Amino acid sequence: MNRLYHVALSPFCRKVRLTLAEKRIEVELVEEKYWDPSPDFLRRNPAGKVPILKIDNRFLPESQAICEYIDEIHPTPALMPRDREARYEVRRLCAWFDDKFNAEVTRKVMGERVWKKIMKKGYPDSKTIKEGLSAIKYHLDYMGWLLDQRRWLAGDQMTLADFAAAAHLSCLDYISDVDWNRQAAVKDWYAKIKSRPAFRSLLQDQLPGLPPAPQYAELDF
Amino acid sequence: MNRLYHVALSPFCRKVRLTLAEKRIEVELVEEKYWDPSPDFLRRNPAGKVPILKIDNRFLPESQAICEYIDEIHPTPALMPRDREARYEVRRLCAWFDDKFNAEVTRKVMGERVWKKIMKKGYPDSKTIKEGLSAIKYHLDYMGWLLDQRRWLAGDQMTLADFAAAAHLSCLDYISDVDWNRQAAVKDWYAKIKSRPAFRSLLQDQLPGLPPAPQYAELDF
Repeated sequence: MNRLYHVALSPFCRKVRLTLAEKRIEVELVEEKYWDPSPDFLRRNPAGKVPILKIDNRFLPESQAICEYIDEIHPTPALMPRDREARYEVRRLCAWFDDKFNAEVTRKVMGERVWKKIMKKGYPDSKTIKEGLSAIKYHLDYMGWLLDQRRWLAGDQMTLADFAAAAHLSCLDYISDVDWNRQAAVKDWYAKIKSRPAFRSLLQDQLPGLPPAPQYAELDF
Repeated sequence: MNRLYHVALSPFCRKVRLTLAEKRIEVELVEEKYWDPSPDFLRRNPAGKVPILKIDNRFLPESQAICEYIDEIHPTPALMPRDREARYEVRRLCAWFDDKFNAEVTRKVMGERVWKKIMKKGYPDSKTIKEGLSAIKYHLDYMGWLLDQRRWLAGDQMTLADFAAAAHLSCLDYISDVDWNRQAAVKDWYAKIKSRPAFRSLLQDQLPGLPPAPQYAELDF
């Protein structure tokens, strides 16, 4: 059976989970505490990160490479457009969320509020959290601007870019750090994506000692 | 005319320059001091980063998305393999160098030794440099292990993965921070890639006040 080594509130793992679920590829989820790695884990992935997809007895790391690979071996439903300009746009936006949004928002807010607690690495730093919560406003506005012109983030079809963005926002939503009233277009977009069957497994995640915010699993939020 | 907004010793800009040159796509290079951005620059790229490729009157940011786009619109010579497993491997290795190598080596060594000086942001921190110079050994050994089994990093043909790796190593070589005698296979690989016509423009780079190390432009190093 295929396996995904992951942690519940990692946006990179979530992007892969959404991609697999949208394609109806079944995987067994294996929680992997990568901050306390077993020798076995490092043998599977010398980079020491999650996600790792075990498929056809190979171990594949790197979320973006995994998602594009899955899309190439299971092309339906397509998560990469056929048009070359549109493919560029999907890749640009995936990098936007996985690099820029991650550095400016996710790592600051989730890093301080969630990961320090789970990894037992001290107390949250309120200055860093504040910086993250200030930066998210700009990102929501940018998404709102895109979604005023397009049905989905990268164009008129749902793509990997939507999964990359939703993966980050859903982690922040778990701890209630997304102001859904800031941009109506973003809220509508998230409601659409959240109600997909592929999203269900994410909405069932529970971290021990850190229950999700009340609206987290609600389709009407 | 096509333009590339770049800075000379950025590995991300170099990956794009190598890709463009290998495909014989002419571009005008425009130096862009992104740490002191003009309003014009931020209009071209809200992420405030380099490289940005101006092509057909569009402004394209994000190095990996740019390179894959160039490879799709100018497929010859191919820098992405046709085989899906091989494409995965190229993308995995690009992420290895642009994320992991960058965080563990380039940002530490170049950040302290070069960028602090150029951006006038204080004095180099020797502890950080030491960490970077210690981490590079592991990366050279990993490359050596790959190249003992393959002609190029991702397989038997030269790909974007080789350009990603060479882009980082060439920046470090400018300040003489690569021990080419550590892994014979890596030295042979770098000699092959350094002697390509696509590499020439990189070897002519000169930072004001920071001349390159003597071996930097030598094909016999």
